[in-house]
This record gives sequence, structure tokens and C-alpha cells, in this order.
Amino acid sequence: MVRKRESTGFLIKQRAFLKLYILSSIEKERWYGMQILDELKASFKPYGYEPQHSEIYRALHELLEDGILSRKKIVEEGAKYKEVAVYSVKNPDELKAYKKLVKADLDRCEQLLRKAIQDNYS
Amino acid sequence: MVRKRESTGFLIKQRAFLKLYILSSIEKERWYGMQILDELKASFKPYGYEPQHSEIYRALHELLEDGILSRKKIVEEGAKYKEVAVYSVKNPDELKAYKKLVKADLDRCEQLLRKAIQDNYS
Repeated sequence: MVRKRESTGFLIKQRAFLKLYILSSIEKERWYGMQILDELKASFKPYGYEPQHSEIYRALHELLEDGILSRKKIVEEGAKYKEVAVYSVKNPDELKAYKKLVKADLDRCEQLLRKAIQDNYS
Repeated sequence: MVRKRESTGFLIKQRAFLKLYILSSIEKERWYGMQILDELKASFKPYGYEPQHSEIYRALHELLEDGILSRKKIVEEGAKYKEVAVYSVKNPDELKAYKKLVKADLDRCEQLLRKAIQDNYS
């Protein structure tokens, strides 16, 4: 278990931000770990943000540990013998609750940034 | 010297955020270290953010090291003998350049948060 840094309630943590994106992807369809990594990287690139693979995997493993997601191994179609991990939603209620929590934090952060722009540049 | 964490370009660092507020305060008037601490804390409280004194002082010391601010000791008015540190702008051009840099980052972060809200909640 990774020790969490003490929170001072500044901006949302990268871990929570990535968990949110992972959950939304898995809500839409079955999810192959490797596939979304590159999608996320490409999606954030115009914003100067490049999440590391290790950070995304840590977020994913926390969602498994928390019991929100589950994982199973399947043999890939067409492949002679190649197992891949596929993730799916295990607890929809907890998923919904987590996303609601993150939404409140994102809103709070947006307000804090807007305050900073107003306080220092007007 | 504190070793900086490797940046992945996620959200603005707390250190830069606090430096910005310190610079804006010192632009407005001569600045007494202890005075602004409580002002900042009160100002951010509605946003669930409580910066620690040690973090604010580290931000202040970096601004001194970078040569943007200077510090002198004065004897406080009315006091029999009580020295206090007063900070002032040493390099206005660098201050302006730093604030411009932080503005760009705040704008970027605001866009990233807005994207996350749109991508995951619509």
C-alpha cells in the first residue's frame, strides 16, 4: 500500500484524475489496459500533460483493490495463445459515488484557479 | 535545496501558486511575512485549501534566491526593540515575467479541468 501524502486540499491529485478517466472508459466498453494508455496520452498532449504508464497502472490497481473494478484474463481473438487482461465494472454504485466525489473536487479546483486569475491579474 | 519532483505537466504546483500570491501582495505594499500567512489561509478556506506556513516560507525563500525579491530587517514602529523582516521587489522585470508564466499555466490548468468535466460528465 502506497503511503498517501498528507493533503492540504490544494488541487486534485493526479491519481484521482486518472481514476476518473479509467472509470469512464470502462463504463463505455470492456477495457484493455494497454489500449487506453496511448489514448489518454494523446488526449492530454495538447494540454502539456503526459501521464506516465506507471501512474496510470497504479490508479487502475487502486480501483481493483477498492472493489470498484474487476479483472479477468481472456485469450485474445485470432491469437494462437495470448492472454490479455480485461477490466469491467464490479460495483456500479461505488463507481457512481466515486465519480460524484471527483466532480465536486473538479468544480472546487476550477473555482480556485479562477479565483487566482482574478486575484492576481485584474 | 529541496529536490524537485519530476514534472509530468499535470496541474500547477502549489509552490508556484503561492509564489504568485506572495508577489502580488508585495507589489501592492511592503510586506511583512507573518501578516500575509493568515490572510492567505483565510482567503483559501472557503475553497477547502489550507496552505501550511512552512510551504509559504519555502515559496518566499525561493523568490529571494531567484533574486526577484529582497529582504531587509527593520525595527518595528512603537516597539522598544523588535526587528522584523520586510520584503520588497528587487527585480520588477523578472517579477513580471514570472507572473506571465504562471498566468499561462493557470489558463492551461483551467482548460484541463474543464476538459475533464466535459469528457466525464456529459
